Amino acid sequence: MTHAPVVDVLKGKYAVGEQVTVKGWVRTRRDSKAGLSFVALHDGSCFDPVQVIALNSLSNYQDVQRLTAGCAIAVVGSVKESQGQGQALEIEASTIDVVGWVENPDTYPMAAKRHSIEFLREYAHLRPRTNVIGAVTRVRNCLSQAIHRFFHERGYYWISTPILTASDTEGAGEMFRVSTLDMMNIPRTDKGDVDYSQDFFGKETYLTVSGQLNVETYCNAMSKVYTFGPTFRAENSNTSRHLAEFWMIEPEVAFADLADVAQLAEDMLKYVCKAVLEERADDMAFFAQRINKDVINRLEKLVKSDFVRMDYTDAIEILKASGKQFEFPVDWGVDLSSEHERYLAEEHVGAPIIMQNYPKDIKAFYMRLNDDGKTVAAMDILAPGIGEIIGGSQREERLDVFDERLEKMGLDKEDYSWYRDLRRYGTVPHAGFGLGFERLVAYVTGMQNVRDVIPFPRTPGNASF
Amino acid sequence: MTHAPVVDVLKGKYAVGEQVTVKGWVRTRRDSKAGLSFVALHDGSCFDPVQVIALNSLSNYQDVQRLTAGCAIAVVGSVKESQGQGQALEIEASTIDVVGWVENPDTYPMAAKRHSIEFLREYAHLRPRTNVIGAVTRVRNCLSQAIHRFFHERGYYWISTPILTASDTEGAGEMFRVSTLDMMNIPRTDKGDVDYSQDFFGKETYLTVSGQLNVETYCNAMSKVYTFGPTFRAENSNTSRHLAEFWMIEPEVAFADLADVAQLAEDMLKYVCKAVLEERADDMAFFAQRINKDVINRLEKLVKSDFVRMDYTDAIEILKASGKQFEFPVDWGVDLSSEHERYLAEEHVGAPIIMQNYPKDIKAFYMRLNDDGKTVAAMDILAPGIGEIIGGSQREERLDVFDERLEKMGLDKEDYSWYRDLRRYGTVPHAGFGLGFERLVAYVTGMQNVRDVIPFPRTPGNASF
Repeated sequence: MTHAPVVDVLKGKYAVGEQVTVKGWVRTRRDSKAGLSFVALHDGSCFDPVQVIALNSLSNYQDVQRLTAGCAIAVVGSVKESQGQGQALEIEASTIDVVGWVENPDTYPMAAKRHSIEFLREYAHLRPRTNVIGAVTRVRNCLSQAIHRFFHERGYYWISTPILTASDTEGAGEMFRVSTLDMMNIPRTDKGDVDYSQDFFGKETYLTVSGQLNVETYCNAMSKVYTFGPTFRAENSNTSRHLAEFWMIEPEVAFADLADVAQLAEDMLKYVCKAVLEERADDMAFFAQRINKDVINRLEKLVKSDFVRMDYTDAIEILKASGKQFEFPVDWGVDLSSEHERYLAEEHVGAPIIMQNYPKDIKAFYMRLNDDGKTVAAMDILAPGIGEIIGGSQREERLDVFDERLEKMGLDKEDYSWYRDLRRYGTVPHAGFGLGFERLVAYVTGMQNVRDVIPFPRTPGNASF
Repeated sequence: MTHAPVVDVLKGKYAVGEQVTVKGWVRTRRDSKAGLSFVALHDGSCFDPVQVIALNSLSNYQDVQRLTAGCAIAVVGSVKESQGQGQALEIEASTIDVVGWVENPDTYPMAAKRHSIEFLREYAHLRPRTNVIGAVTRVRNCLSQAIHRFFHERGYYWISTPILTASDTEGAGEMFRVSTLDMMNIPRTDKGDVDYSQDFFGKETYLTVSGQLNVETYCNAMSKVYTFGPTFRAENSNTSRHLAEFWMIEPEVAFADLADVAQLAEDMLKYVCKAVLEERADDMAFFAQRINKDVINRLEKLVKSDFVRMDYTDAIEILKASGKQFEFPVDWGVDLSSEHERYLAEEHVGAPIIMQNYPKDIKAFYMRLNDDGKTVAAMDILAPGIGEIIGGSQREERLDVFDERLEKMGLDKEDYSWYRDLRRYGTVPHAGFGLGFERLVAYVTGMQNVRDVIPFPRTPGNASF
């Protein structure tokens, strides 16, 4: 492990003339009539490969001339200033060892040509070798590191809320069941129901759809907390924005109201976008060139912009006055659809919007009732170019108001006993939000489909690899 | 959100005489005959609470005298040098607002007294309010941040390998099934089997037991990668070391052999233990005082020690020559049991051991066969006081050797087609390891049971909250 990452060579960490070893995979090979070959060697450490000059004086030059995309090689050579275009430094090889050949270059799925993004999805185990998925991987990592750093610097604790849950409090219809029962021989109770008392956990168990209720318990002790983990929806949605398995970030803050977490969300989005602009300029240049030419520009704008706070009630008026024909009619009380959100964020405001105070009847039971008795302290952040990227709320911390809400919604107090305990013992105003990580990665990179920003996407009918 | 975290007040970020607002929960209250009360206010930002002086001149002093453990309060006051013992700074309150009372202090489960750790487990939603679980939470967070930082600084990318998997390649017997089929009406095929083609993913699907095979695909493109995510075992193990849901860290390195990842593991363990010693001295002092008096000492020793490399074959000789009576007999070819590991790490060496080159028949199919034809390039790290904490190996990168191994083990090549592709297209030596995060947290804090170092433990018969 004494070899040098390509990024270090290209960034000039080694002096011209210095000997280095690099190891990686061949992207391209070009033979010159002058009796030498140019081999682009890639190791994932940055977007660009390093150019290796292979002179025909190499003892295994015949092997070098057989190198194709995907072959693994180890190169010892000296750093040189490059004569060619496109790079400042290159390596003149003194030895090139072929570590691993490509079995049949003609049928190698990742041969050096453009592949459709749908084709790459079929080869999720090989697609990280491509420019586009390599770049996505580095940006995804950058965002994840920046998120942890953002919260850590501000005194937040990462809490790993459970993946397996026996609470179906957020809508069992869209949940995956987890079981070890013998499917060929399901045990039954006397009444004929499934006897989950014989299951691994002694009751019916699901995959979590959100860590929020659980993380509120830690918020009410540690003050500032966040989750960053996988969540699941058994929704039969075959869209470019939905995955059955995706990662969520859910901060939760004690002694905080909706305005506080709206500001936190704005600060966080700016912080992580800035990190990508600063740390992944190489990958972003590629996305701007090949995926969406606006992608750097819109990040720079987001970092500099002031997010616009807007009340739902005002948004309805704006939509009504817009003179636009929307597919879904606009009236106070309706949920905003994607066409409404896009009009507001892209046409009316032209900047991210923090939409606040939605009608209580279209929002979840745990959101705090506003003094008007009609709306709750909920917010969505709508970004131009992608729509809703964050949803959050202040939580109902008043036990009597909470219980009344449960009753009106026909929910059973008993099912929420531990959640209610937080309101019985030293209750405090608190608020939080949820950010779908893949939607963020898609937004930042300009990738159109969340299936291409997670290594192995899970969607209806697909859990390959 | 303009209030100050307690840690900032105690660390002297505010000058004596300066006005601050603090918000949190009451730990204790003590009334003095001199007509004032001392209220210990805790907000989770550090181990210690801040002492608040409440004079009887406060307009709501009667309320102050009713404060009990767990009540939420907001205090405005000025920073003072403390006259009492135990803290350098305190706050003299000008106002104390009671934000949330405790409904019935006599029955509040987290009243200010010592609780057994088993009792606390029954109240997983309230236990972060205790000293011990608060300290565990901060150390757990510190370790998690340090792990991400360690890998990020070294150019590793975090890869989120899938939680849902249709591959049962690591032993389906211990896996949880994930399904949306109607359990009261399981669809059958013509042959009478369960018709998983009607399930959400169109085939039988499980929760992952390891991200390793998946992350190898990214390693073979990006060179240095790691996972940090939840993994699952449907093992009916009711021990202090097993959870059905736990978090794992799995780095994977291209162009690396066993010695390289052994060094990486040693470096990582030292780095994260050092981070805890430096950043969480307050919590570690508590663990040393109340949980295990050796806990700081052994971390300091680990950071300074050189891990001892030892071959399995040599270990067997040492155990045989020890003159010890072991419950499980020692002979070349047997798996080491916990008594053997403890003897070696605690008595024979007295430092962490990196045990290497195990018999191939007791190790997994993907581990690289050594030249002796009998052993594989596998390692376990055994730490005094806890036993095995890391397991890793060099992976078999040679397709012909791999295929032969599959055949001898009666495994079907077809089931490993994408994994085999990595050996067909530019294969390289690579290696990695797995670290069970909860075992690490337990080791660092001295906590005896992994159920107390994860917020909501899942074990056979228990998925509460």
